[in-house]
Amino acid sequence: MTDRHPVTVVGLGAMGREIARVLLEAGHPTTVWNRTRSRADDLVARGATRADTVGQAVAGSPLVLVCVLDYAATRELLEPVAAELAGRTVVQLTTGTPRQARELAAWAAEHGIAYVDSGMMATPPMVGRPGSAFLYSGDEAAFSRYRETLELLGTARWFGADAGLASLYDLALLSGMYTMFAGFLHGAAMVGTAGVSAAEFAADAGDWLRAMTGSLPHAARFVDTGDYTTDVQSVEFNKSALDVIVQASRDQGVAADLVAPIQELLARQLAEGHGKEAFDRIIESIRPRPA
Amino acid sequence: MTDRHPVTVVGLGAMGREIARVLLEAGHPTTVWNRTRSRADDLVARGATRADTVGQAVAGSPLVLVCVLDYAATRELLEPVAAELAGRTVVQLTTGTPRQARELAAWAAEHGIAYVDSGMMATPPMVGRPGSAFLYSGDEAAFSRYRETLELLGTARWFGADAGLASLYDLALLSGMYTMFAGFLHGAAMVGTAGVSAAEFAADAGDWLRAMTGSLPHAARFVDTGDYTTDVQSVEFNKSALDVIVQASRDQGVAADLVAPIQELLARQLAEGHGKEAFDRIIESIRPRPA
Ligand SMILES: NC(=O)c1ccc[n+]([C@@H]2O[C@H](COP(=O)([O-])OP(=O)(O)OC[C@H]3O[C@@H](n4cnc5c(N)ncnc54)[C@H](OP(=O)(O)O)[C@@H]3O)[C@@H](O)[C@H]2O)c1
Ligand SMILES: NC(=O)c1ccc[n+]([C@@H]2O[C@H](COP(=O)([O-])OP(=O)(O)OC[C@H]3O[C@@H](n4cnc5c(N)ncnc54)[C@H](OP(=O)(O)O)[C@@H]3O)[C@@H](O)[C@H]2O)c1
Repeated sequence: MTDRHPVTVVGLGAMGREIARVLLEAGHPTTVWNRTRSRADDLVARGATRADTVGQAVAGSPLVLVCVLDYAATRELLEPVAAELAGRTVVQLTTGTPRQARELAAWAAEHGIAYVDSGMMATPPMVGRPGSAFLYSGDEAAFSRYRETLELLGTARWFGADAGLASLYDLALLSGMYTMFAGFLHGAAMVGTAGVSAAEFAADAGDWLRAMTGSLPHAARFVDTGDYTTDVQSVEFNKSALDVIVQASRDQGVAADLVAPIQELLARQLAEGHGKEAFDRIIESIRPRPA
Repeated sequence: MTDRHPVTVVGLGAMGREIARVLLEAGHPTTVWNRTRSRADDLVARGATRADTVGQAVAGSPLVLVCVLDYAATRELLEPVAAELAGRTVVQLTTGTPRQARELAAWAAEHGIAYVDSGMMATPPMVGRPGSAFLYSGDEAAFSRYRETLELLGTARWFGADAGLASLYDLALLSGMYTMFAGFLHGAAMVGTAGVSAAEFAADAGDWLRAMTGSLPHAARFVDTGDYTTDVQSVEFNKSALDVIVQASRDQGVAADLVAPIQELLARQLAEGHGKEAFDRIIESIRPRPA
C-alpha cells in the first residue's frame, strides 16, 4: 500500500468525494481540498490529508485531479497556483465543452503543466465499480504514467492528443442518452392519456429500445459511406410516420416538442429531393457541410 | 391445413405482401386485392386467389385484413363495400392516429362490421418471425375469434376495447425509437467533426444506451407517483449538462435541433421553481395538465 504515489483531489462534490474515497481506499496518500471545508471531514476521518489552500493541496502530489462545477471554477482555482502546478499533471474531470478543454490545455502547456482532460461516464455510486468508464484525451505520456491510478475510478479509455476529444465523445454519448430518455417520456405522456402507467410502458419500451439498438451499426453504415440508398425506411416513409406521431400526440393533448424536430428534419430532406433515401440522412441537415 | 378459415388481404405493399404470404403458407385460403394488380402475381402463383374488386375480395372471407397507405385510402376502399362487410371482421393494420382508429371503429359499428385496429411493430422481413409484435384493440370478441390466425403474423397483444389504444401504444413506442435514433445521429454528427466514424460510435452508443434503458423503470416511478423528489440527477444539474451539450454542438458546427428542445423543457421546469426535482419532471411540460 505504501508505495502508491500521492494524489490530490480538488473539489469534493458528489463525484469528487467518491473519487477521493476510492483513491484513499486503494492506498494512495490523498490530499483533499474543497471550498466548503466541512465536506472534507469524512475523508479526513478516514485518513485523507486536508489542505487549507489550493496551493498547499497541489504541492504534495505529482497528480492533481480536479472535479468542480465547471471550467470557470476550475480556472479560478488553478490560475493563481500555476507556478506550483508546473511539472505536475492535472487531470480535469469537471464537465465542459471540447473548446473549454482545449483552452485549458493551452493554458497548461504555457505553464509547463501536463494536462489530461476527462469525460466521466459514471454517477457517484458507480465510481470505482463495474460499469464506470472515464474517457481521457490530451497529454498521452501523462495519461500512461497515471493510467493504473485512473483505472481505479472506472475503465480508462484513451481518445487521443486533442484534449477536447474525451469531452466530445462523452457529450455525444450523453446526447444519445438524453434524447432516448426524452423520447421515453414523450411516449409515457402519450399512453398516460389513456391511463396506461409509465411503469407498464417502461417495461415494453426497455425491451423495444434494447432491440432497436441492434440497428445502430446499420445506421452508421449510411452515415460513414454517405450512400443513403435504401428500399426500406425511406425519408418519405418515416416522414409519414412522424406526421402521424405528431398529429396523434396533439390529438391527445401532448405537446410535440420532443418529436417535431425529427419531423422537421425529415421534411427538409424531403424538400431537398431525398425522399427515397434512408431516414438516417437527416444527419446531413445537422452536421457541418463538408468544405 | 384445409380446415383453416378463409382470409382476405386488401393492400399488397411491402407489409401486405408478407402478411398474405404468411397466412397462405399456414394453409389459410387467401384472397388478395391490390390497386396495382400485378403486385398480386407472385402470391397468386403460390396459390392465393386474386379478386378483381374489393367487393369480391371481402365476400369470400369472414376476416378481412387491410394494409394500405393510410386511413384515407382505407375509407376509399371500404366505404363502398360496407354492405358486403356487415357481419364480417375487419382488422385494420394500416398505420394511423388513435382518433382515426376510433372514427373508423364508429363507422364500422354503424354498419354492423366487427372492427379491430392494430399497430404493427414489425418490418416486412420480420412478419411471421420472432421479434414481430402486433398490438390490437377494439372488438374483443372478434379479436379472440381470430387470435390464433393473428398470432401467425407476430405476437398478438391485446390493449382493450378503445380502438385507438393499439395505435396509441404503437406510436408511443415509435416515438421512443425515433428519438433514440435521432439522438444517436446527433452524437455521430458531434464525434464525426473529430474524424470518429459513426461505426465506432455506434458500438459504444449501443452498449451505453442498452445500459441506460435499465433506468427507465426508475424514471417511470417519478412519473407515476408525481413525486419528483431526488438528490441526484436534478433538473438544475441536467440543465447544465444540456447547456454544455448544446454549446459544444454549436462550437463543432453541429446544429442543436435535436437536443435543444430538452434544454428548453428543462429551462421551463427551472423557471417554474423545480430545479431541485428530478430530470423526468420535463414530462409535466408536455403532457396535458390534470383537469
Ligand atoms: N454527479 C454526476 O452524476 C456527474 C456525472 C458526470 C460528470 N459530472 C460532472 O462532475 C462535476 C462535479 O459534479 P458533482 O456532481 O460532484 O457536483 P456537485 O456535487 O454539485 O459539487 C460541485 C463541486 O464544485 C465546487 N465548486 C463549485 N463552484 C466552485 C467555485 N467557484 N470554486 C470552488 N469550488 C466550487 C463545490 O464546492 P462546494 O462544496 O463549496 O459547493 C463542489 O465541490 C461537474 O462538472 C459535473 O457536471 C457529474
Ligand atoms: N413497411 C414497414 O416497415 C411498416 C411497419 C409498420 C407499419 N407500416 C404501415 O403499414 C402500411 C403499409 O405499409 P407498406 O410498407 O406496406 O407500404 P407500401 O409498400 O408503400 O404499400 C402501400 C400500399 O397501399 C396501397 N395504396 C396506397 N394508396 C392507395 C389508394 N388510394 N387506394 C388503394 N390502395 C392504395 C398501395 O397500392 P399500390 O401497390 O397500387 O401502390 C400499396 O399496396 C402503412 O400504413 C405503413 O405506415 C409499415
